[in-house]
Amino acid sequence: MADLERFSVSMDGDLLAAFDQRIGQAGYQNRSEAIRDVIRDYLVEQQVQLPDANVIGTVTIMYDHHSRLLEDRLTDLQHDHHDAIRCSTHVHLDHHNCVEVIVLSGASARVREIADNLISTRGVKHGRLVMTAPQ
Amino acid sequence: MADLERFSVSMDGDLLAAFDQRIGQAGYQNRSEAIRDVIRDYLVEQQVQLPDANVIGTVTIMYDHHSRLLEDRLTDLQHDHHDAIRCSTHVHLDHHNCVEVIVLSGASARVREIADNLISTRGVKHGRLVMTAPQ
Amino acid sequence: MADLERFSVSMDGDLLAAFDQRIGQAGYQNRSEAIRDVIRDYLVEQQVQLPDANVIGTVTIMYDHHSRLLEDRLTDLQHDHHDAIRCSTHVHLDHHNCVEVIVLSGASARVREIADNLISTRGVKHGRLVMTAPQ
Amino acid sequence: MADLERFSVSMDGDLLAAFDQRIGQAGYQNRSEAIRDVIRDYLVEQQVQLPDANVIGTVTIMYDHHSRLLEDRLTDLQHDHHDAIRCSTHVHLDHHNCVEVIVLSGASARVREIADNLISTRGVKHGRLVMTAPQ
Repeated sequence: MADLERFSVSMDGDLLAAFDQRIGQAGYQNRSEAIRDVIRDYLVEQQVQLPDANVIGTVTIMYDHHSRLLEDRLTDLQHDHHDAIRCSTHVHLDHHNCVEVIVLSGASARVREIADNLISTRGVKHGRLVMTAPQ
Repeated sequence: MADLERFSVSMDGDLLAAFDQRIGQAGYQNRSEAIRDVIRDYLVEQQVQLPDANVIGTVTIMYDHHSRLLEDRLTDLQHDHHDAIRCSTHVHLDHHNCVEVIVLSGASARVREIADNLISTRGVKHGRLVMTAPQ
Repeated sequence: MADLERFSVSMDGDLLAAFDQRIGQAGYQNRSEAIRDVIRDYLVEQQVQLPDANVIGTVTIMYDHHSRLLEDRLTDLQHDHHDAIRCSTHVHLDHHNCVEVIVLSGASARVREIADNLISTRGVKHGRLVMTAPQ
Repeated sequence: MADLERFSVSMDGDLLAAFDQRIGQAGYQNRSEAIRDVIRDYLVEQQVQLPDANVIGTVTIMYDHHSRLLEDRLTDLQHDHHDAIRCSTHVHLDHHNCVEVIVLSGASARVREIADNLISTRGVKHGRLVMTAPQ
């Protein structure tokens, strides 16, 4: 981490008031902290579009745990990509549904491909990928 | 517009350098301008989720212009909601495809509903809604 | 357009009922039409990520029309990229705010770049890009 | 789960070929499976907008593990909302950065609020929420 820099920003009062109100609701205690976060989000947004960017991906899938074949298949998939899969966490949601959250790291294009593979597995009802990157 | 306010922000140097590089690429000439924009985007993101928020919606639809019935139907729809529809612009894309861009204003929930109606019209191949709001 | 094909899909009754209800609300008159639309949206989603894909982009920007320099700058920008810009439409929103909707066509990477340039123009308060592609 | 239903869909051949190619790449073995998935995604998209909808949220946050106060604060937050937080998983990313993935369940509005609180915690560098819902 480099040294801390300090700079000034000008903004019309209405916009600043609206921002302060919104970040207060969100729980921010400090305006600089909130500005750093929206800036990081703006940067991550573009970074994760680059196929070679090094990212963290979280895949959330929902599936019916009665399909035993599915669990075997998901386990196989995760072993095939063991170098990219950091861990996975399982939640028993209700009598039928399980949620599994898989954390991946690697090049953005590969993370997307593995996520596609997990989500397209027969028996997975729904899945979504979200990506972040160190800033 | 209220008076201009000026305040200072602290940030570690690496993050600031990454932001300056990205906004340079995007064409910003000024850091304050870029920060105001990311702040407005953060506010709009939440505002357009509120059903009663007053928003501007832009619906972009693609359709096959050979279906004459479709054009009539789209025109009818726009007349039914004339108070919410500000204007529409038509682009002849290629031999088959037309793009129509419709600008709507009103409560977020109503804008979504009209957009759903436009996009679901038989013959419309694809459509997307994007919303903004005055800040 | 190729010949029409017909195929069958199996689905559990609850999911089908939920889909039928949702598409009824959205205004679809026909299940096949709705399925074609969600399929096109799924395809467009991936296509627009490819930098070379030929896309249509709609940029919606909001700005204060009192800044005369801005209008000149936006006009210049649009002339610089005249081969990619199909048209633009202007809406006088209220005493302060104008909305301009610019329709672009070309490679996805170039459309993003021009959109960045339009949105980063000093005086533009907020802007969003949405992309579609012929299917 | 209700009984399985079977119905037919008509589609022009080009669109069907593009869909078959894309789902083959994604790893689907079966067209019905892929169609069920895009339909579920379309339904989830709308559901998670409703403040009272029962959803699963996955919050992925990145932070600097050197800030000991942060870990205490995150733990406190998770205890405050223990009824909504199903579990959390921690990944040591590199010398500086940690990723924590928190799985929440409950009403969509509450899940968003807790996610806002986690992401706005001082020291969290970036965070994203993704939601799904049983279908």
